[in-house]
Amino acid sequence: MTKQSAKPAAKPSKGRGLTPQAEDFSAWYNDIVYRADLADLGPVRGSMVIKPYGYALWEHIQRNLDDMFKATGHENLYFPLLIPMSFFEREASHVEGFSPELAVVTHAGGKELEEPLVIRPTSETIVGEMYSKWIQSYRDLPLLYNQWCNVMRWELRTRPFLRTTEFLWQEGHTAHATADEALAETTQMVDIYADFSEQWGALPVFKGEKTPGERFAGAKLTYTIEAMMRDGKALQAGTSHYMGENFARAFDITFNDVNNNQAYVHTTSWGFSTRFIGGLIMGHGDDKGLIMPPLLAPHQVVLVPIYRATDDEARSRVLAEVDKLHAELKGLGVRIKVDDRPELSPGRKFNEWEQKGVPLRLEVGPNDLDEGVAQLADRLSGEKRAVKLANLVQTIPAELAAFHDALYARAKTFRDEHTADVSTLDEFKERIDAGYFVYATHCGDADSEKWLQETTKATARCVPFDGPSAEGTVCIHTGKASGYPRKVIFAKAY
Amino acid sequence: MTKQSAKPAAKPSKGRGLTPQAEDFSAWYNDIVYRADLADLGPVRGSMVIKPYGYALWEHIQRNLDDMFKATGHENLYFPLLIPMSFFEREASHVEGFSPELAVVTHAGGKELEEPLVIRPTSETIVGEMYSKWIQSYRDLPLLYNQWCNVMRWELRTRPFLRTTEFLWQEGHTAHATADEALAETTQMVDIYADFSEQWGALPVFKGEKTPGERFAGAKLTYTIEAMMRDGKALQAGTSHYMGENFARAFDITFNDVNNNQAYVHTTSWGFSTRFIGGLIMGHGDDKGLIMPPLLAPHQVVLVPIYRATDDEARSRVLAEVDKLHAELKGLGVRIKVDDRPELSPGRKFNEWEQKGVPLRLEVGPNDLDEGVAQLADRLSGEKRAVKLANLVQTIPAELAAFHDALYARAKTFRDEHTADVSTLDEFKERIDAGYFVYATHCGDADSEKWLQETTKATARCVPFDGPSAEGTVCIHTGKASGYPRKVIFAKAY
Repeated sequence: MTKQSAKPAAKPSKGRGLTPQAEDFSAWYNDIVYRADLADLGPVRGSMVIKPYGYALWEHIQRNLDDMFKATGHENLYFPLLIPMSFFEREASHVEGFSPELAVVTHAGGKELEEPLVIRPTSETIVGEMYSKWIQSYRDLPLLYNQWCNVMRWELRTRPFLRTTEFLWQEGHTAHATADEALAETTQMVDIYADFSEQWGALPVFKGEKTPGERFAGAKLTYTIEAMMRDGKALQAGTSHYMGENFARAFDITFNDVNNNQAYVHTTSWGFSTRFIGGLIMGHGDDKGLIMPPLLAPHQVVLVPIYRATDDEARSRVLAEVDKLHAELKGLGVRIKVDDRPELSPGRKFNEWEQKGVPLRLEVGPNDLDEGVAQLADRLSGEKRAVKLANLVQTIPAELAAFHDALYARAKTFRDEHTADVSTLDEFKERIDAGYFVYATHCGDADSEKWLQETTKATARCVPFDGPSAEGTVCIHTGKASGYPRKVIFAKAY
Repeated sequence: MTKQSAKPAAKPSKGRGLTPQAEDFSAWYNDIVYRADLADLGPVRGSMVIKPYGYALWEHIQRNLDDMFKATGHENLYFPLLIPMSFFEREASHVEGFSPELAVVTHAGGKELEEPLVIRPTSETIVGEMYSKWIQSYRDLPLLYNQWCNVMRWELRTRPFLRTTEFLWQEGHTAHATADEALAETTQMVDIYADFSEQWGALPVFKGEKTPGERFAGAKLTYTIEAMMRDGKALQAGTSHYMGENFARAFDITFNDVNNNQAYVHTTSWGFSTRFIGGLIMGHGDDKGLIMPPLLAPHQVVLVPIYRATDDEARSRVLAEVDKLHAELKGLGVRIKVDDRPELSPGRKFNEWEQKGVPLRLEVGPNDLDEGVAQLADRLSGEKRAVKLANLVQTIPAELAAFHDALYARAKTFRDEHTADVSTLDEFKERIDAGYFVYATHCGDADSEKWLQETTKATARCVPFDGPSAEGTVCIHTGKASGYPRKVIFAKAY
């Protein structure tokens, strides 16, 4: 009856403290994912268990993003997990992009299957097959559908949340009568992703178009949101694709238009995944651990009662006040956690909730009660101050809103301070090496983009919709004319 | 540019009407699933696409059941889809039960895998592996976790919602220090399923224990809820299992108890799936189509404006009132759908929403406005009456509550009228043939249970917790003493 195995090797566990970010950002990330109990390694290489604290974050992301989808007329549905291998072959660039990463079911029910089935890496193909059946007339359009599901991409180098063989996401799939409508949808959805990241996640993003080399396999164009992590690297946090007629032609999705002519539909797809949790960790965290954006935080406030175990009178006074505060804050819709574990000291609790990034901590002890106050500690500023009990409860929602604003401002300032606009290749290299996002004019030439990546490790993240104009400038690498109306943002990326 | 394929063969599409239930219940079921747009067949045999109208029902089921789990202290998390084949072999009866139905990934990332990976048919094994790592001390217990996910069981005979190779469900997995605690959890969860079915789905259930032959593979005991469909057959709608130490021993899940002795945990699991949608369809539907339970209905009220296309004045008066009613009812939290499709006649709309089972229909036309009323039609009673506009909005929530009660009462009455308590094998056969649920004393002998099934097609559904006592009676088949304190319910089942 001894445990069969220790923790897997890949999981760091040296000592109690977190690796400082400046020492090794990557080690800090691994440390905090496991220490804050967001996830654990699964038994199969590249797989992950999302633990309750991480999953609660995902539930808040899901719920609020889903509300935004529904408010813009989308409905949820569910497509099958397994897709016939032959479906992938119908769209040439799609199969080229995805075939190296497919997981394949060859046997089921004790028999070899006639055709191998692929675990969806994304669902455009099976969606295309069904839309071809469902769409007959312009009256069936637009189809505005979304699904929340798991997908699988067999990656070699995996990291929790950022890149795992299986991940959770939503994938929207829409079909439209015209290119204009489909383009408007593509834009609307990248706008929703950007708004969600900023307004719910307190994480500012650059919103723009991917260069052709970075497009989704099968797309005519890809819009993206790109966030800066605390090490200056970029994280692609959501993408929205306009497919043109590519999938409609591959899957024969046609409709009779108002003039009774048969035409191909224009499709879009857009996805947002558990990767965003990695973005929240690396976009906000510090050497003490996570800092949760209040609107998505599993616990917005942690309330720690303080008393000596031997002092029954103090204990009952404190717990009575704690119960009252708990009930009142819950009544206001605040997600509050009372940490009344008797076996842990207040100090241990403070450390744990700091590491887990709970925005606000309330402490109530007998001395506080005598003075009619509670102590309110702010995870971001690290400050602690006494707040009168009389108006404490009403204060909290405003404190949470202020916390969100401060967290957003901190991320925005950090990003602004680490974003440069350059005109020469030397400047480009220097800033990339220093961990910056770099605006640079680029000719759009695929070979040049590849050379820049191989030489500097920086990739073209996007051409931001509202970035500086490229007018009057030339490519920092080739000296040719700009390939885009605006400058491209380059950065090292996750 | 012609469509590649017609609808798959299995999908009925003869004429416009539904097959009457009395003529062929099974054909009625297939008809309504597709006509009401709940689901479509997927491209792979045995797979299904859950369409928006069906998925919206699932979302309401999920949201409300999840609230009940959380209110009883459970947290959600997410385990990986793929499980090493070897895990299944650690619990003998578990592998025996599931191995014929497994779908197996043998290749991934372009290579053959060293060990085949199984798409989870259920997650006890991977949960066991992780719990063995997570649980060290009695302080870690109980673990009260649940996940919402897809699972796969390669069944040969499939039917939408009732039995598909892939389905959606939740699976709760808990670990406890003692058998008593685990048994209390097992009971609590079957109680929650029963309450949910009755209080949200308006579907009465028998709650009881499965006979040993019908237990979950690997369980010490299985509790179940069994609902009666409108053809008198039973549908198992949710199960809760007490595993004893079976999985703890197979996966070495041990803990140090309060006295610092190492002991095995006691585990439970409990599941509720998209199968329940099949139960709602067959438990409430009639020859006109679905009847949705109001608390889970995607649309609780449909509002149909009525006017002549040529009468602009009437149209604008009617639409103004419709907008007002829509906004007010939405404000009260009523899920209301306005059907203002100009291309369809009111009659077509009425038929469509009747078929889709929307509980209440409101009609507003110019004559109604002149009289200060709207017409309120009830899907269950089929009655329509004029309701004063002045107090219409306030009336609706009460109407919905009354609809729920009437729907529940109808199902309960039907079940009571089709449940018999028998003492002889002849009576047993007669009632089973007539489509009844039959209470009968049984010796508990596995061979006898099998003989009854082969001879009469009836299976032991459960020993209901509050069924008639078996005291003083003998087995209807063997004449031996009862194997259970109470009579067993037998029925033909889905």
